[in-house]
Amino acid sequence: MSDTSPPRRGRGRPPKTARAPEGTRGMLVRAGVELLTEKGFSATRVDDVLNATGISKGSFYACFDSKQAFGRVLIEHYASYFNARIDRCLADGARPPLRRLLDFVHDARDGMQRHAFRRGCLIGNLGHEIDILPESFNTLLCAILRGWERRVTECLLEVYGAAPSAAQRQLCARISRYFWIGWEGAVLRARVEHGPAALDLFATFFFVQAADLLGVAAPDMARTIPPVSPGPPARVKTDPAAG
Amino acid sequence: MSDTSPPRRGRGRPPKTARAPEGTRGMLVRAGVELLTEKGFSATRVDDVLNATGISKGSFYACFDSKQAFGRVLIEHYASYFNARIDRCLADGARPPLRRLLDFVHDARDGMQRHAFRRGCLIGNLGHEIDILPESFNTLLCAILRGWERRVTECLLEVYGAAPSAAQRQLCARISRYFWIGWEGAVLRARVEHGPAALDLFATFFFVQAADLLGVAAPDMARTIPPVSPGPPARVKTDPAAG
Repeated sequence: MSDTSPPRRGRGRPPKTARAPEGTRGMLVRAGVELLTEKGFSATRVDDVLNATGISKGSFYACFDSKQAFGRVLIEHYASYFNARIDRCLADGARPPLRRLLDFVHDARDGMQRHAFRRGCLIGNLGHEIDILPESFNTLLCAILRGWERRVTECLLEVYGAAPSAAQRQLCARISRYFWIGWEGAVLRARVEHGPAALDLFATFFFVQAADLLGVAAPDMARTIPPVSPGPPARVKTDPAAG
Repeated sequence: MSDTSPPRRGRGRPPKTARAPEGTRGMLVRAGVELLTEKGFSATRVDDVLNATGISKGSFYACFDSKQAFGRVLIEHYASYFNARIDRCLADGARPPLRRLLDFVHDARDGMQRHAFRRGCLIGNLGHEIDILPESFNTLLCAILRGWERRVTECLLEVYGAAPSAAQRQLCARISRYFWIGWEGAVLRARVEHGPAALDLFATFFFVQAADLLGVAAPDMARTIPPVSPGPPARVKTDPAAG
């Protein structure tokens, strides 16, 4: 689940990027997302980001007022990238809704495999340190999770055609929420085990139940999107003392 | 999910505790488990533990060789406590297996509620920082998770009487693993939302499916263990800059 898209700009006053070359900001954001996805916010020091990029502290603070401001940009950047990824998987109206959701599972599994299951979900990581994060991060994380839920709910609702009932809306919203709850648990376990088995087990159980509740056929669990080519070898495990 | 039981002793050479009063070691372990459950390993400094207990650095290092050694003791201590808690819920052979597992869900939900859903699962927290932890922690976490799975598997197998078939064993093991995968996701979400809704939604979906697969009636989701009395008020949110 690495991230290569350009960072989003905030609203309101012009972003500090204007005072630094876009390349610097982009490099900081990329390295920051990578570190946050591996280590979380508290354990990531600004110095880690500087070491990973070779960028000076002065240039960092020309782009971002504080570590907290940097963190918010990283979260928004990751959310934007991940939303696009979900949307891409769920967009194909020619495929049944659950099949599209399974495409997302396969796509995200590929993303984890590229990093030898050593990186998880940045949002999940932050959730685990929620009580030592700035309060504004919490609001942001909840909004992002609701956005993921809404996307899957809308996809599932297509099962019911153009005018789903209130009960059908509620059912789809609950199934969507159950999906994301379990998915974060599966991603966590896949990281601990450094392998895909938990993702596959989760998908097998979830899709059977979701299909049953929606009254549709369960999707064939076989992959129908082409597998990604093997990525670069996993990075050498860093010395934990350096974390 | 706070922890008040005495710490376990390791095997092999006599533990360093022998050189410090048990009270000191016990206080350090209690404070350490609390900090680890809230913040994880990387963000918890030895100084945090000293500040929380008023114990000197010298006394800390009289008990533990290093932060890593301290971390292992905390993990083992938490696992021992949590295993006993699971066993207590699953032990009542007069109640149907799924009912007992639901008792565990209610018990753990009460535990989170006592801390206003601001503390999660120490093992889940550590899973999120797995790649910056000592390699030995990973082995330990996997063993603990397997222990939890084994406990629930054995409980579910009682559905099939004294001599379950290999297929029944496999089914129970898969349902157990699916439970723990989803449960960790639900605990994470409950922390982010500071409320029980995710735990309840997870339980509603999980128990219906598990009952269906096992060919038994789903347990009534209503609580049948007495609710705990409200605990002390949640602690004031700490300044994230101090984390």
